Amino acid sequence: MTEVRKQAERAKQAYFKLQKMDRTSLLHGIAQSLRESSASIFAANAEDLKAAKDTLSGPLYKRLIINEPKLRDVIDGILQIAAMEDPVGRVMEETELDEGLTLRKVKTPIGVIAAIFESRPDVVPQIAALAIRSGNAVLLKGGREAAQTNAALGKAIHAALAPQGIADAVQLVSTREEVAELLEMDDLISMVVPRGSNEMVRSIQERTRIPVLGHADGICHVFIDESADLDKAVRIAVDSKTAAPSACNAAETLLVHRAFPHRDQMLDALKRAGVDLRLNSEFGHEFLDLIMSVRIVDTMDEAIDHIHRYGSSHTDSIVTENPENARRFLDEVDSAGVYWNASTHFADGYRYGLGAEVGISTNRTHARGPVGVDGLMIYKYQLIGDGHIAATYKGQNARPFTHRRRS
Amino acid sequence: MTEVRKQAERAKQAYFKLQKMDRTSLLHGIAQSLRESSASIFAANAEDLKAAKDTLSGPLYKRLIINEPKLRDVIDGILQIAAMEDPVGRVMEETELDEGLTLRKVKTPIGVIAAIFESRPDVVPQIAALAIRSGNAVLLKGGREAAQTNAALGKAIHAALAPQGIADAVQLVSTREEVAELLEMDDLISMVVPRGSNEMVRSIQERTRIPVLGHADGICHVFIDESADLDKAVRIAVDSKTAAPSACNAAETLLVHRAFPHRDQMLDALKRAGVDLRLNSEFGHEFLDLIMSVRIVDTMDEAIDHIHRYGSSHTDSIVTENPENARRFLDEVDSAGVYWNASTHFADGYRYGLGAEVGISTNRTHARGPVGVDGLMIYKYQLIGDGHIAATYKGQNARPFTHRRRS
Repeated sequence: MTEVRKQAERAKQAYFKLQKMDRTSLLHGIAQSLRESSASIFAANAEDLKAAKDTLSGPLYKRLIINEPKLRDVIDGILQIAAMEDPVGRVMEETELDEGLTLRKVKTPIGVIAAIFESRPDVVPQIAALAIRSGNAVLLKGGREAAQTNAALGKAIHAALAPQGIADAVQLVSTREEVAELLEMDDLISMVVPRGSNEMVRSIQERTRIPVLGHADGICHVFIDESADLDKAVRIAVDSKTAAPSACNAAETLLVHRAFPHRDQMLDALKRAGVDLRLNSEFGHEFLDLIMSVRIVDTMDEAIDHIHRYGSSHTDSIVTENPENARRFLDEVDSAGVYWNASTHFADGYRYGLGAEVGISTNRTHARGPVGVDGLMIYKYQLIGDGHIAATYKGQNARPFTHRRRS
Repeated sequence: MTEVRKQAERAKQAYFKLQKMDRTSLLHGIAQSLRESSASIFAANAEDLKAAKDTLSGPLYKRLIINEPKLRDVIDGILQIAAMEDPVGRVMEETELDEGLTLRKVKTPIGVIAAIFESRPDVVPQIAALAIRSGNAVLLKGGREAAQTNAALGKAIHAALAPQGIADAVQLVSTREEVAELLEMDDLISMVVPRGSNEMVRSIQERTRIPVLGHADGICHVFIDESADLDKAVRIAVDSKTAAPSACNAAETLLVHRAFPHRDQMLDALKRAGVDLRLNSEFGHEFLDLIMSVRIVDTMDEAIDHIHRYGSSHTDSIVTENPENARRFLDEVDSAGVYWNASTHFADGYRYGLGAEVGISTNRTHARGPVGVDGLMIYKYQLIGDGHIAATYKGQNARPFTHRRRS
């Protein structure tokens, strides 16, 4: 058995054990251990930063930094997650099937989750905390650039979990070869969460039969309807691109109704904000930069068709003062996020109030949009009887079910 | 473009169109058309039955029959599904992010579903009705033995959908080669639901990257605890095997606590019911027959470990008079169905009160256990603002979110 297979086996055992533990106090323990380990975390981070100085570009280098305020944010985030009500075992529905026979649908974790991400080391404690809150074990593989920092963060987390005998619930995986092995272990790993470049996510999707939660492309649209308010149109179009041009929730394409009377003013405002506009070209391209493609459409239906054809079902926004058009757009556009008079940049777990996110999903099953604790959970059915058997409800004298919904 | 690719493209277009239609009246139309087409359905079925007479075994031949009472059940089932509240667009949660900025999590369909099944032709109208209720389009591939019956059922469904311009929402696919093609179309098909033998389901799981909802094995367990009541133990053990020995929810293994004082009486009762017992062998084997493996365990933990090791996370039951042991079993056993003093045969969409089922899932994501309308749905986020942009909530003077949960 390879080392990483052993790791996955231990994670599965830790997953079973985690169900019986006080997960809130584990989270408090992790927060405290991170606080106590700050010196060694900063030292490790300094090493990573030194090595990255000449190789990483500005924004990527910046994402690598873990300093005092960033660590404080991470710890605050964990304490917020610890303050959430424990979701495991929560009764979602209860139905009386017959007298004395009660069916409950109960929230449960998924199992062992493999999280594979690039650069940002603060993802390690964040995903670890979301996993423990939801009762899942997690195997984490970070980027090479953050290897020292990730190891120090992992050590701090282990220092909190080991005394409780549950260190294997959060484990780091070191090499790409080990990731390739993990992706084959559909008997032990129940979900894969990749976070990184399109190429990285797509390569994982193609190499595994384990469900993958995430997104490759983020092709978001802003549609300026005929009746849009100019001021809102400008604010939203500009923010949807400039608030974070390389984020997946940045708008790549602006669709403008031909009858919108302030088209030139709006496009000028975008140009003044530094956005390079490409008229009628490069649709469906994720620029990850201050560039937008622009298309003039004759009808809202044309805009919706465009979004369905070129979009990635991530987040799409309509700017309009016409409530009927807004309602149609919200109903008919088939994306994880559909917005009315709001910037696409709101597509984010923290902004949605989920506390944190493991990522944003453009899947059509299990979880869509920003994914927090809830997207790391599933359910089981508990049936409580008193000797009830199926034969009673079959054949000529079949007893009927009551199917009385209690909650 | 191949014929089946064209079918899938048309299904996707029909899916978009279906969102704007009155799906309840479509369901009533289908029920009425099936009633009016009964003569041609029975005639087609007679042809299938004639061809199958010498090749299909007793139970399989019986499953192929569509007669007057069976068709009535099918139609009643569709009317029940039509009577369900329309789930599409139902608000699941509503959160105020800030003044005038409202986030809604809204139930939506998944897209185009491919359903692949063997033999039983009544699956065609049943899955078609569940798909339309949930706003999904569906491509159906049935077994060869039922080809004439399936075609007649498909024709009756089309007769109801075509006048509304939505015939492509339910389409039949004819050949295995076309199924192989469908399994590659992850750009058009969003979920595959296989229903049939273990080999069939496993072969589909291995050939596609589209999410597959279903189960290959059904390795269910009954655990007779130390304090079990003899009468309940006998009733539940016998029913869990004999009510339908070849169903996926039949118990394959009986685990008996060594300290249970009535072991011999219980095993004798099983033998009298015609069950062939295999002591300490063939664990994890799905007999699909009146055979059970039996293991004597020293502790409940040993029973739970056995279920985690040999089970398929389908349905497992404990028989006990000890509520604390029952609570532990229900919490710790990691299966889609965990039962206390009830037969494993209750694992069924109709018995659970779901109206009907597309199948039973042993997946750990999206949907578990018997899957009805709810398992064919996902959600989207609708965000309603009034010119709100992300920049307002960033940086030094960041405005805080309210994150006030409204429902």
